[in-house]
Amino acid sequence: MDRRDMEATTTGRMAVLLQHLTPTTSSIVSSLHPLPCLGFTPAEFNSDPPSFDLLSMRKLLDGHNIEERDAVFKLMESSDLFILKHIGGDIFLGADYNQPMEAQRSITMDRIHFLLRKGVFRGWLTNDDLQFAFERSAVHESLGTFDHSLGIKLGVHFHLWGGAVKYLGTERHHRKWLQATEDYVVKGCFAMTELGHGSNVRGIETVTTYDTSTQEFVVNTPCESAQKYWIGGAANDATHAVVFSQLHINGRKEGVHAFIVQIRDGKGQVCQGVKIADCGHKIGLNGVDNGRIWFDNVRVPRENLLNSVADVTANGEYVSSIKDPEQRFGAFMAPLTFGRVTIATSAVYMAKIGLATAIRYALTRRAFSPSPDVPEVLLLDYPSHQHRLIPLLAKTYAASFAANQLKKIYVNRTPADAKTIHVLSSGYKAMFSWHNVKTLQECREACGGQGLKSENRIGQLKAEYDVQLTFEGDNNVLMQQVSKALIGEYFAAKKKGKPLIAFGLKHVNIVNAPAQTSHSSSVLQSKDFQIALFQLRERDLLHRLVANISGQMSQGSSVADALLKNYHLAEDLGYAFSERCVLETFIAVEEEKTHSSIKSLLEWLRALYILSSIDENPVFLRYGYITPKQAQAIQSEITRLCMELRPQALALVDAFGLPRGLLGPIAFDWIKYNSWEHVENRGKDEKSSATFLASL
Amino acid sequence: MDRRDMEATTTGRMAVLLQHLTPTTSSIVSSLHPLPCLGFTPAEFNSDPPSFDLLSMRKLLDGHNIEERDAVFKLMESSDLFILKHIGGDIFLGADYNQPMEAQRSITMDRIHFLLRKGVFRGWLTNDDLQFAFERSAVHESLGTFDHSLGIKLGVHFHLWGGAVKYLGTERHHRKWLQATEDYVVKGCFAMTELGHGSNVRGIETVTTYDTSTQEFVVNTPCESAQKYWIGGAANDATHAVVFSQLHINGRKEGVHAFIVQIRDGKGQVCQGVKIADCGHKIGLNGVDNGRIWFDNVRVPRENLLNSVADVTANGEYVSSIKDPEQRFGAFMAPLTFGRVTIATSAVYMAKIGLATAIRYALTRRAFSPSPDVPEVLLLDYPSHQHRLIPLLAKTYAASFAANQLKKIYVNRTPADAKTIHVLSSGYKAMFSWHNVKTLQECREACGGQGLKSENRIGQLKAEYDVQLTFEGDNNVLMQQVSKALIGEYFAAKKKGKPLIAFGLKHVNIVNAPAQTSHSSSVLQSKDFQIALFQLRERDLLHRLVANISGQMSQGSSVADALLKNYHLAEDLGYAFSERCVLETFIAVEEEKTHSSIKSLLEWLRALYILSSIDENPVFLRYGYITPKQAQAIQSEITRLCMELRPQALALVDAFGLPRGLLGPIAFDWIKYNSWEHVENRGKDEKSSATFLASL
Repeated sequence: MDRRDMEATTTGRMAVLLQHLTPTTSSIVSSLHPLPCLGFTPAEFNSDPPSFDLLSMRKLLDGHNIEERDAVFKLMESSDLFILKHIGGDIFLGADYNQPMEAQRSITMDRIHFLLRKGVFRGWLTNDDLQFAFERSAVHESLGTFDHSLGIKLGVHFHLWGGAVKYLGTERHHRKWLQATEDYVVKGCFAMTELGHGSNVRGIETVTTYDTSTQEFVVNTPCESAQKYWIGGAANDATHAVVFSQLHINGRKEGVHAFIVQIRDGKGQVCQGVKIADCGHKIGLNGVDNGRIWFDNVRVPRENLLNSVADVTANGEYVSSIKDPEQRFGAFMAPLTFGRVTIATSAVYMAKIGLATAIRYALTRRAFSPSPDVPEVLLLDYPSHQHRLIPLLAKTYAASFAANQLKKIYVNRTPADAKTIHVLSSGYKAMFSWHNVKTLQECREACGGQGLKSENRIGQLKAEYDVQLTFEGDNNVLMQQVSKALIGEYFAAKKKGKPLIAFGLKHVNIVNAPAQTSHSSSVLQSKDFQIALFQLRERDLLHRLVANISGQMSQGSSVADALLKNYHLAEDLGYAFSERCVLETFIAVEEEKTHSSIKSLLEWLRALYILSSIDENPVFLRYGYITPKQAQAIQSEITRLCMELRPQALALVDAFGLPRGLLGPIAFDWIKYNSWEHVENRGKDEKSSATFLASL
Repeated sequence: MDRRDMEATTTGRMAVLLQHLTPTTSSIVSSLHPLPCLGFTPAEFNSDPPSFDLLSMRKLLDGHNIEERDAVFKLMESSDLFILKHIGGDIFLGADYNQPMEAQRSITMDRIHFLLRKGVFRGWLTNDDLQFAFERSAVHESLGTFDHSLGIKLGVHFHLWGGAVKYLGTERHHRKWLQATEDYVVKGCFAMTELGHGSNVRGIETVTTYDTSTQEFVVNTPCESAQKYWIGGAANDATHAVVFSQLHINGRKEGVHAFIVQIRDGKGQVCQGVKIADCGHKIGLNGVDNGRIWFDNVRVPRENLLNSVADVTANGEYVSSIKDPEQRFGAFMAPLTFGRVTIATSAVYMAKIGLATAIRYALTRRAFSPSPDVPEVLLLDYPSHQHRLIPLLAKTYAASFAANQLKKIYVNRTPADAKTIHVLSSGYKAMFSWHNVKTLQECREACGGQGLKSENRIGQLKAEYDVQLTFEGDNNVLMQQVSKALIGEYFAAKKKGKPLIAFGLKHVNIVNAPAQTSHSSSVLQSKDFQIALFQLRERDLLHRLVANISGQMSQGSSVADALLKNYHLAEDLGYAFSERCVLETFIAVEEEKTHSSIKSLLEWLRALYILSSIDENPVFLRYGYITPKQAQAIQSEITRLCMELRPQALALVDAFGLPRGLLGPIAFDWIKYNSWEHVENRGKDEKSSATFLASL
């Protein structure tokens, strides 16, 4: 490690001077020195000052409602319900995971109760203003950064239960339930998943029939695999459930519909015919009371059918304006789409917490020195450590812009956007939740042992957020569904003899655009090269997949079977599509009127994001989209870009706008926080192993 | 999915017949049916019978002492201390993670106490018979499969504390401490790591001086960053510590030495001058009481220096038979080597638990069907799901053979083996612990929501074993150290003008052996092709690294700096070396006199291991070791091998010899286990939210 790199900056020179002026760590001190070791310097001291306006960058990253986000952080910092510990006058927010699940559930509800009293949820279901939708998102996202259990409890109650009532129900349901939900007079849950059916909602086994004589629906769990499972809120608190069930009426199976079923009365007693059990302890998310539900001839009024999609008349006639059962099913799945949008967004925030902590720590932690008489080297001054963290930072910036864009499209949606939203939310949900878990894992390892302490958050977040990879649709299944949609559009366009234009796929119509083979730095970093390369990948994979599928179909295979056989290409294509969309969004952000200091940083970040994606994904070399020479040059570019960005790494994570209290102690003066004077209950630390010793 | 594939086997045909004979899941049942849904069939029913002898395969995998392993499993099954739950007459072993850390620590010690009384640890430090070393390993490995906290508490006490006394101490230490340790009369811990120094042991800041007048060493913590940190056993239980400290004597800094320091008395009171604090709640491993230790003028007798490497005479003269301080330091680090060997081995066992559970589940869980009137498809009948799990199974077989080989070398070691053991244990510790975490993550996702339940073990094991990636040496640092050793040997051989032969590197002397470019199936699967390719990778990376380092040194860079700059190549080379060693071991196992039925399976497994490693690692294409055509053909080979192995997947995990009780409920009849009749406290499930509702 060249000392020249370190000394190039004023701060570097000061660090070296300071080291010469202070006693070395090997001088003998005969009694415990009360001051922290002089080896610690703050991250700010080991970085360049920001080269850009932090608030402007934050606005790009957060997208909207900065004030409301900060207000939520302040609110949490004002209450002991959200404070994990005070150390030396500093506050650290966080849930206490050293608690059995009942205690975690209980305090999660206390937090919700507190926020309710503060009016935080006012309008969440009754205010239909588009701008308010953004405000609500901002508040929900900020609450979610505190603890996933809190985010999920609110998401289930407001967006799954509440969203189902709102978008699958009609006026009579809105009048009866929306305000009551906002006020937590009723507590809702979303009973879709069953023990035997998760991703395959079509196959759920709960059965509902209609009793014309009493004008009631009768809900039943016909076998054990049909029990509702993983129903957040059901184990302890929920009074009402949206129950997804097969509807059998007039001798026909009309498919999956949604019914409101009360499961607990006002005193918290489980209703007649309903059985509830606990899903038990989980690897994380233990503040959410996931439950299991059985229905035994549970009767609900006819009006409880959420009837915006289909209805049953008083005398038992099934009616629907949507003739196609597939389309009806799709309409009932609508509440899940917003779930995917929020998952994609919250995943990005957790990656931000991980990176802000790990990068700050890497700017204060030293390990190994080239020779005994020079200071040990900061972790983030190692090229290898830079390579572990800074590309993830670049990808998180990219994901942040893309998630915001998806959110915008969703909030402002028209029916014409439905397909795009479905495909984009599926791809982004998969990609960003995977990115989050991968980022948190790397950040945990980059922080060594400190990454294992719950108070430092990173490690615990892995367990809390792992669920994102499989709920609301398994990620692998979602990626395959993205490909399926692209293939569908391709064949549909071909059938009509028209060029393919949906999903931004216009470039697919280009015939034989050769790849750029130059491996010069300026070419590799140019956005024209990068866009062309990502389009090439998407185009070529799509054509290969289409060719394989067509070939197998001509030999008798079904489309579905052919897609399953070509799972490699299908997964690669889903990823290629998603990444191409992220790149386009990133370039759009760059091209907006942004200050030149931000613009140049965004260019570097975008280049690093793209080049590291290329470097890590064998598909580019496997199909010859790049040459081995380009691949080797790309590795050097990545190393160089990491080095260029390192002086601004702190600024880039400070731009996330996360409050200090949301990062773990290792993001700051971890020597001070670990000092003896801050040990809780110090002096009372004699643990009595007397009993054990006596028993030997 | 071709029904032909499914029906090709007798079991497949039976499954289809059965489905036709049973009522469909959509038939209306008006009351709760007490029987599980007929959709469940056991894994055995959906697999071919084993094509090989399971016990023979287990002997290859476990390597030694099968009886002792089974005896340990039986012992655990006999005690409520190890049983997590009974469901329907079946026992499931496991720790209860829904407990605060104090309870987890307490019951971990209860378990140790139980095992101690049963004589399980007899001879662990006093029996020097080589065969017994294998028996002890077998017992420790089996205990570790129950819970990592148990494995770590025993490892710290016996192998770190006990190992330090044994191998760094001399006869006076053995007499005083070994039997007492075996009997738990003393409880030991290993105080090496400090707040400011983990991987860089050379830089630790604890200081020990010598008082000639009293013939005592005086131990001090000179500043907060010098506090001992992560010391397993220290927070609650340990009475004694091996303290690693700088030794300052006669005005010289003699480097890191090891001293026995008592930290608690017989009544459990912390000794004078010693301060102890807790490391706090962790993301896992909460059954281990990790502590922090400060020393303030703590005096220990001169005899407490562990003096096999160096000594201090009564009148304060420092003496050592090892003149080179570097070599002396290496000798003090010796206890860590066995730690790496055990980490590599235990990591493999956890991957086995994950795969046995996930593969069994995938042989019973169905999701989606090509059309509504056929049964949903078993997860493991999807090519994509096969690709997620079966290559990991192949790699786990490879790792199992390699870990056993390392263990054999270690137990039978002579001084000449020291370098090999150091390099191999470093590479394997990194590779197998990463493999384990990656496998557990994939298995958790492959099990969907069920993978999140603590009782199903997979998800929880991720948190419990994550520590392996960074303790006993950070994995990334270890891989770089492997490369450093190889480079060192290369330059040393060049200097002497001799061919390179250490570490199996003879093939490096070959000049320009061209790569095989054929992409035929028979070539790709042949072991000659695979060995040649892995040697090519290792050789080429070594030469590139040497060339870069030499070039940079000629421009004034130090070797160390040059290695840091070339971190890409250094990490790739470390991996290439480790994988080449694993391949050689695998081939050696194949070539032993094994029954032909096992041999052919091993060939497939080895091919799948190698080909998927090639497929996932961009290095092969980046440097042209394979062509794009070969890469594409390799993908097809992988898919084909997975399909070939699928009918034997169950047998291959049954061959692990893990007892039923160590796998989670989802490995068996998960519908029965989740049925209402097995719900604990059923009927008492009314949770009172009355208080909350009343407070609104």
